[in-house]
Amino acid sequence: MDKKYVIGIDLGGTKISGAIADLDGKVLAKHTVPTLAIEGEKAVLNRIIEVITKVMSDSNKVSNEIKSIGIGSPGPLDAKKGIIITTPNLPFKNFSLVQPIKEKFGIDTYLDNDANVAAIGEYVFGAGKGTKNMVFITVSTGIGGGAIINGNIYRGNTCNALEVGHTTLVEDGPRCNCGNYGCAEALASGTAIGNRAKEAIEGGADTSLKQYKDVTSYEVFVEAKKGDKVAKEILDKCLNYLGICVANIVSTFDPEKVIIGGGVSKGGDIVFEKVREVVNTRCFKAMADACEIIPAGLGTDAGVIGAVALALLEAKNN
Amino acid sequence: MDKKYVIGIDLGGTKISGAIADLDGKVLAKHTVPTLAIEGEKAVLNRIIEVITKVMSDSNKVSNEIKSIGIGSPGPLDAKKGIIITTPNLPFKNFSLVQPIKEKFGIDTYLDNDANVAAIGEYVFGAGKGTKNMVFITVSTGIGGGAIINGNIYRGNTCNALEVGHTTLVEDGPRCNCGNYGCAEALASGTAIGNRAKEAIEGGADTSLKQYKDVTSYEVFVEAKKGDKVAKEILDKCLNYLGICVANIVSTFDPEKVIIGGGVSKGGDIVFEKVREVVNTRCFKAMADACEIIPAGLGTDAGVIGAVALALLEAKNN
Repeated sequence: MDKKYVIGIDLGGTKISGAIADLDGKVLAKHTVPTLAIEGEKAVLNRIIEVITKVMSDSNKVSNEIKSIGIGSPGPLDAKKGIIITTPNLPFKNFSLVQPIKEKFGIDTYLDNDANVAAIGEYVFGAGKGTKNMVFITVSTGIGGGAIINGNIYRGNTCNALEVGHTTLVEDGPRCNCGNYGCAEALASGTAIGNRAKEAIEGGADTSLKQYKDVTSYEVFVEAKKGDKVAKEILDKCLNYLGICVANIVSTFDPEKVIIGGGVSKGGDIVFEKVREVVNTRCFKAMADACEIIPAGLGTDAGVIGAVALALLEAKNN
Repeated sequence: MDKKYVIGIDLGGTKISGAIADLDGKVLAKHTVPTLAIEGEKAVLNRIIEVITKVMSDSNKVSNEIKSIGIGSPGPLDAKKGIIITTPNLPFKNFSLVQPIKEKFGIDTYLDNDANVAAIGEYVFGAGKGTKNMVFITVSTGIGGGAIINGNIYRGNTCNALEVGHTTLVEDGPRCNCGNYGCAEALASGTAIGNRAKEAIEGGADTSLKQYKDVTSYEVFVEAKKGDKVAKEILDKCLNYLGICVANIVSTFDPEKVIIGGGVSKGGDIVFEKVREVVNTRCFKAMADACEIIPAGLGTDAGVIGAVALALLEAKNN
């Protein structure tokens, strides 16, 4: 029987979403269940299987018609072995997730981390469509990334490639959650923007940010747009570091596109104009001119669509 | 006729070296002529042709037995189109170097820049043998690099990938030759080490470096080994930045090996111990533990052996 469909699963700390799609990415059926991580490895695995079964039955498809299954999950994980090593909001510890699903359905199954899945999603269906070499970064609580090289995801030796959030931009900069100092993530993530705002308020700065009980990067963008000087200065400084992070990516990968997603990218023009300015200043002209720096193309469904894209890409490349 | 040989050409500002080798890289004949760049494009092209002809005749081989020709040249150049765009010590400007050689001999001919050729040389014959993903950097007057990804050189969109010497490590650091500030090259190259020494001497520092009329990184290594405090501090600071540069490469590529060549790498243990220490501090443990950071394996012949390796690798991958 012709295998004309793929299934994508977005495994998160609060919910598991699945979709079945045709080879053009057209979704036939979707299903979402709560993760209930507290119930443990076996229960969560069974709920993933339940979602796969449900989207197949809802679309009247059987295993023989499914080319592959793609699963996106928080990491760290070993994509090559199909093992989740550990992850804060899920019960899996060195858990072989791919094997039981592959055996249960007799379908090739692939696992990758959220950032790589988002990169693949953008490459196959989003803003990176038609490129050969592109880098995706997500800038929200943290900064993560994924690179498509010669039309395939680049995972590196230990499946940790593109940890660009933990490249050092300031030798003795603020401490990062990873324990290091001056990482891009500690300087330019949404969390970093929020932290700089909190520090300004605590330092007694004259700013409209004081009105908020719990200030995050969102409020900094809102107040900066209204003209608050302190909010604007914070953004300018943090986005300059984001620009340096992207400039270093451009100088290293010489990609066709750098695609930026995540909460901070929703800041819009102020973000992209600043990043572009820094790239133009700091990179060789040939590379800077040739590289587009653009927002992610996929919306709220990015996780599950990315997992569908993972299933398609891996089926093609394996 | 079986094509069992390749030719490598190392094109430099002062000399052109060529070698013919079998498919295992065993050199059968070598020849070197002065470049005499001042005589112009045509004359230099003819001398490259002369070297190719000479190594073929010295080894009693004919065109039909040659699989491919590899040429290493300073850049910037367009490896995909086989064009040298411009380069300080050679007469070529937007010169199609590959085409006339390919036509003259009827042999597939490939061109790449020195850093990529060195990376390929290390991958095929040197310290990177047997890896799948590795990064080579050369640290001398400047800092350049090349990456092997999935067994092939990664060139990027405009053939400028791995300009790691021009990634920013200090936002408002010393001015770099590229016009930017705080590039790795301005902080950690041999030139940077020499500049820091000159600044120390001019600033009246109490250092044995004062005895030298023209101090370079070489003298800084010599005096640091003898125990000069200022020389040791300069090295510690510059090698810390080299460590950050390498740590950022590790966090980005998650490679099996980072291979360091060039004059500064000749500093030996003091260089590699410091770089390793910084990588261990700044990178995720899984990546740092899995990545070897080692000196280049090829010696003085690296240029021409690298060009032989380019010929072999491109013949295999095309």
